Amino acid sequence: MQLSKNNLQDKQNPIYDVIVIGGGAGGLSAGIYLKRYRLSSLMIDKGKARSFWMQELHNYLGLPPDTPGRVLLQRGKEHYASLDGDFLNGFVEEVIDEGQTFAIKVKVGRQNSIEAVFRSKYLIAASGIIDYLPPLDDMRNVYEYAGYNLHVCMVCDGYEMIDKKCGFFAGSEVAIEEMVFNLSWFTPYITIFTHGVFTISEPLRNKLKEYGYPIIETPIHQFVGKNHKMTGVELTDGSLIELETGLISMGSRYHNTYLKDINLELQGNNLLTDKMCRTSHPRIFAIGDLKVGLNQVIIAAGDGALAATAIWREIRRTTGARPWLENLA
Amino acid sequence: MQLSKNNLQDKQNPIYDVIVIGGGAGGLSAGIYLKRYRLSSLMIDKGKARSFWMQELHNYLGLPPDTPGRVLLQRGKEHYASLDGDFLNGFVEEVIDEGQTFAIKVKVGRQNSIEAVFRSKYLIAASGIIDYLPPLDDMRNVYEYAGYNLHVCMVCDGYEMIDKKCGFFAGSEVAIEEMVFNLSWFTPYITIFTHGVFTISEPLRNKLKEYGYPIIETPIHQFVGKNHKMTGVELTDGSLIELETGLISMGSRYHNTYLKDINLELQGNNLLTDKMCRTSHPRIFAIGDLKVGLNQVIIAAGDGALAATAIWREIRRTTGARPWLENLA
Repeated sequence: MQLSKNNLQDKQNPIYDVIVIGGGAGGLSAGIYLKRYRLSSLMIDKGKARSFWMQELHNYLGLPPDTPGRVLLQRGKEHYASLDGDFLNGFVEEVIDEGQTFAIKVKVGRQNSIEAVFRSKYLIAASGIIDYLPPLDDMRNVYEYAGYNLHVCMVCDGYEMIDKKCGFFAGSEVAIEEMVFNLSWFTPYITIFTHGVFTISEPLRNKLKEYGYPIIETPIHQFVGKNHKMTGVELTDGSLIELETGLISMGSRYHNTYLKDINLELQGNNLLTDKMCRTSHPRIFAIGDLKVGLNQVIIAAGDGALAATAIWREIRRTTGARPWLENLA
Repeated sequence: MQLSKNNLQDKQNPIYDVIVIGGGAGGLSAGIYLKRYRLSSLMIDKGKARSFWMQELHNYLGLPPDTPGRVLLQRGKEHYASLDGDFLNGFVEEVIDEGQTFAIKVKVGRQNSIEAVFRSKYLIAASGIIDYLPPLDDMRNVYEYAGYNLHVCMVCDGYEMIDKKCGFFAGSEVAIEEMVFNLSWFTPYITIFTHGVFTISEPLRNKLKEYGYPIIETPIHQFVGKNHKMTGVELTDGSLIELETGLISMGSRYHNTYLKDINLELQGNNLLTDKMCRTSHPRIFAIGDLKVGLNQVIIAAGDGALAATAIWREIRRTTGARPWLENLA
């Protein structure tokens, strides 16, 4: 059921088998599997998963290639609800390992918010990452195009950029080094924007020149275009750069601060997991973009199936087999 | 494009980047990713992937839970075709490792079949497994119910069996030991059918008796029911056992004989792979049910994304970055 401020009192006493933090593709797939395994689950979602912004999901087997990400999420939420999964809109602030259980502190409601605590035996961290976007005075201008022809994922949308004039919006020198030359697989017509927030070293500057990729260091005033189709960038000096598409790589924030007091093994900023998505804590699983691996919707969905299955196997083993009572000799 | 006997001559000379063997969920997802990575690919499918038989796919994020497996496959095939992927209905007989390339021998056409040879740099083995069904005189009677309420996968369909009178159709003692007590998580009302093809040892017989699961060793004459809803089993002695659902676990055949001359590492009958689905051969990937892991449609689809991405990264690295020619100083 959908929990809210008014009905969450009753749900704070029972211990859930699993609490899933995050209602994106990974969390929803996990929730569907958990409920079909007859396990009790609460999914806590702060809203707006990364795939919410995808206007067209082009590479998800089974969905027509113009399906918006929010349709996938909506269907998943309905699917999970049809299996009687509990769902709460809220922000997870802290997870406390109590030994046999976890206590999960949640802030519910944006205004007059209240604190609630839920408990579970297992935890699935599926809260993903949030991309940084170019910080303009008018952020609405960025959201006008982000997810349309202004992309955040080369693997997802490289195909849409093939041989188009592409703006590469970087947040650091490392982003340029790691991405630009790979992006050229899809299009060599790359213009690099630093937004004036960092400088590029001489060796990299020379290499970019050698490849013929212009560098624009003047800050961006706004994106230009209409009907969600970005056609260029207006700089703060008034000049206009024409573009047909864009890729943003300004970094991202991992939504895992609630795990900070639990020492989980990391690789960089990603949680290390085994083949079933189990972290270094035996009862915490990490799926989707939080874990080491490829950040793709279809992979996050598969991760959900893996984590839910590993948990089910363990709970099932502990519980033991059920006899057919009436038939007992 | 769709290849056939009439147009496959032209396609036997160029070397594909990747040949995908199998057009089920894993292969199709791989194909979609490969084409979106601007790689050339040929998918060779013998027809009737395991998910083809699933009348309702209940656990695939993004699809309504009554979606037939064949709809997923059809959509995937259309998606792959829309990206200009080559597709051939045929049976792969042999894969020869030629060093830099693989030669793949295919039998095309059931009648007046011809032999064709295609070549590729990489290979994705996605040909899955085929379940054995109870071998009755009238196999059409089995297919009447298989995939409806006569299931082959407990993980997929356990939820549909909850607390129902369930026939467990076993192919061996091991199948009973491994499955029956886990199946009781969903329903304890289990009747075991051996079809008279193997005997059950005393210790297991006693354990089953203790749990109250009846054992039927008389062979099955036919399934009983109507409109694809199985309501019981008629035995060869004429007696009738009422059932509400059934689970078949009579073993399965791995579709990987074409790899027999290439020594790939196995774990049991499954191919061992790394996190990107690469086998012990650096240019052969295995995805879906062929590899070690959980046999689930959503996981096979994620595997396809992993294998395609690993191959793309390698080809991209070998090819190098593209300069913006007209802009070179």
